[in-house]
Amino acid sequence: MDAVNEGTGPQSYTQNSSCQRGALEAAQEIIKEEIAEKLDIKQLIASDSLNTFRIADLGCATGPNTFLAVQTILEAVQPKLGSQNSQTFPEFQVFFSDLVSNDFNTLFKSLPPQSQIPYFAAGVPGSFLTQHKQIRNLSSVLHHFHGPLFPKASLHFVHSSCALNWLSQVPKPVAERTSSAWNAGKILYSISSSREVTEAYSCQFANDMGLFLQARANELVGGGLMALVIPGLPVGILFSETRTALEFELLGSTLMGMANMGLVSKEKVDCFNLPVYFPSLEELKAIIERNREFRIEKMEAISHPKMKTEPKQCISSIKAVFEGIIGKHFGSNVTEELFEQCSIKAAEPSVILLDTDMPTLHVLLVILKRNGNDNA
Amino acid sequence: MDAVNEGTGPQSYTQNSSCQRGALEAAQEIIKEEIAEKLDIKQLIASDSLNTFRIADLGCATGPNTFLAVQTILEAVQPKLGSQNSQTFPEFQVFFSDLVSNDFNTLFKSLPPQSQIPYFAAGVPGSFLTQHKQIRNLSSVLHHFHGPLFPKASLHFVHSSCALNWLSQVPKPVAERTSSAWNAGKILYSISSSREVTEAYSCQFANDMGLFLQARANELVGGGLMALVIPGLPVGILFSETRTALEFELLGSTLMGMANMGLVSKEKVDCFNLPVYFPSLEELKAIIERNREFRIEKMEAISHPKMKTEPKQCISSIKAVFEGIIGKHFGSNVTEELFEQCSIKAAEPSVILLDTDMPTLHVLLVILKRNGNDNA
Repeated sequence: MDAVNEGTGPQSYTQNSSCQRGALEAAQEIIKEEIAEKLDIKQLIASDSLNTFRIADLGCATGPNTFLAVQTILEAVQPKLGSQNSQTFPEFQVFFSDLVSNDFNTLFKSLPPQSQIPYFAAGVPGSFLTQHKQIRNLSSVLHHFHGPLFPKASLHFVHSSCALNWLSQVPKPVAERTSSAWNAGKILYSISSSREVTEAYSCQFANDMGLFLQARANELVGGGLMALVIPGLPVGILFSETRTALEFELLGSTLMGMANMGLVSKEKVDCFNLPVYFPSLEELKAIIERNREFRIEKMEAISHPKMKTEPKQCISSIKAVFEGIIGKHFGSNVTEELFEQCSIKAAEPSVILLDTDMPTLHVLLVILKRNGNDNA
Repeated sequence: MDAVNEGTGPQSYTQNSSCQRGALEAAQEIIKEEIAEKLDIKQLIASDSLNTFRIADLGCATGPNTFLAVQTILEAVQPKLGSQNSQTFPEFQVFFSDLVSNDFNTLFKSLPPQSQIPYFAAGVPGSFLTQHKQIRNLSSVLHHFHGPLFPKASLHFVHSSCALNWLSQVPKPVAERTSSAWNAGKILYSISSSREVTEAYSCQFANDMGLFLQARANELVGGGLMALVIPGLPVGILFSETRTALEFELLGSTLMGMANMGLVSKEKVDCFNLPVYFPSLEELKAIIERNREFRIEKMEAISHPKMKTEPKQCISSIKAVFEGIIGKHFGSNVTEELFEQCSIKAAEPSVILLDTDMPTLHVLLVILKRNGNDNA
């Protein structure tokens, strides 16, 4: 019933449907009785042979990347099913999942027409981590699953790209003035941060990732695959050695400069940190092995020439991803000014960012297979 | 990845993620290969015993009615499962479905906190009929399933309330100037419409409902139940004998009055019709029997004293449901004026609407059970 008036104002459907309420309630009562009397659970179980292949993309945002990822998965899965009896050839159901504050309306409107996609689509709200809940507008995150999103053993394939970098929260010690990991004047574990800061971030990532793996282990059937794509470190390189670290350092020092000029409160800068982390393959491997529910089929750090871009463009990329979260803390005026100043600084010949031979972040690819079928 | 910038403008994530694109593409390729090599379909099938009970609410709008309906269903289903071995006690997954143009963002934000609901929620975009597609903004209806929304035999319970009244389109003959069912100057099959008009509406409803039943028969497992709640006619009463018909008649004549006063083009009034229908139990029964896939467990027309309300409130109710669709055709100024005039007229002592003993629409409740398990 889409043509009804939105909202809850005096003209809204919500405010004007009370004259139906009574009969609806009566109907509900009868439905209840009918279920109690007529629903034959044994019959349901007997007739419910599994004929659906279920895929989830976690951190789908609004497309188009998520549609491309799903397309890829389908193209690879379909030929594998070809050898099955056509009677039992499954249909596909794809779950697009992201935070409840994600714009699902845009996602759904961007879905290719049904005739062009060989699957049934669904959206799943919730945070597959409790992403940003401390930082974003709390009222918009009513819904925070701490991990579980799907019924037990109901998925055959899980995909997540560029989402697991987001921590469920800024590591607590980093935001505490009395802690040895208090990260005053910086916005991330950075070149000038203490060892404790980096450890707190690493620890938070391990904790979040552990919960994520536990939830997915429950949801994937034995033999189900999971493909994780996570921006992370090149082999043998520390974050502080990457150009990305320099970019965040520049962002942080520009912010401190603005604080010194009185454009933003120093207090506010001190207590601001970004809830993101860029792991190494070794870290990831250790976390996965601790979970014990998956076999690592593949682990790889992938670089690509296209990742080396102009300093100004890198600042634009950072802006596109982090503007929202920075704006919520500092206000949009400060954010505009910050990125403006950063872009100018980044382009200065004296700034080391121009060194295009510095290591940049890689893309870590992990393919996992759910062990056995002991959760089935 | 929710904190990225929305849209496709120069500051958007879409426009600023190209530096990741290359590595992502490389990752996708490897995922493809990994699936081809590692995915063991036989193992998946072996481990995938069904342990989820799936419920769909079709025409969910944005709540809260949909949450209440689901709550009702769960409360009735759960005790039935109590006798099962706790090892096999299923989890619940609930699919909230409505047109792609529905506000799913609001729906998801209105969901009760996960700790308060015993199910996993998902949203499914698409029209379970191609509702309004001819009337609403076409660009927002990229996605129109003509029936199918879910994989075969994947649902155990379907619920739909106050949604099947919406026709997939205004019946073609009604909107054609050369047809004998051309419904000039009226907005619905009404007291003053020709028999052909009513037949065209009835025919469209039967057609839409037939497609709906066909799709649901495919999606429900054998033994699965379907509960349909549809505003319709009291037993033995024609639509033209209801107060609702008078209300729509009043709306139509007010519109014509405005056309005569030059406030709206007569042409526009002539070609406007509402895509809704209020069936009788007999009609519904015949359509369901023609489909042959369901056993009718219950059919009832329910009235309720609360349904008899003040004329002015009835006009408010009509406004809440139909303002959008009328506004799209005539513009919001005309719509405001129309409902303003209607409210005044409805309250006039001379208007028959004051007769509170006239029959009003009932709520038709239909409980169906999917036959056998020949679709499993």
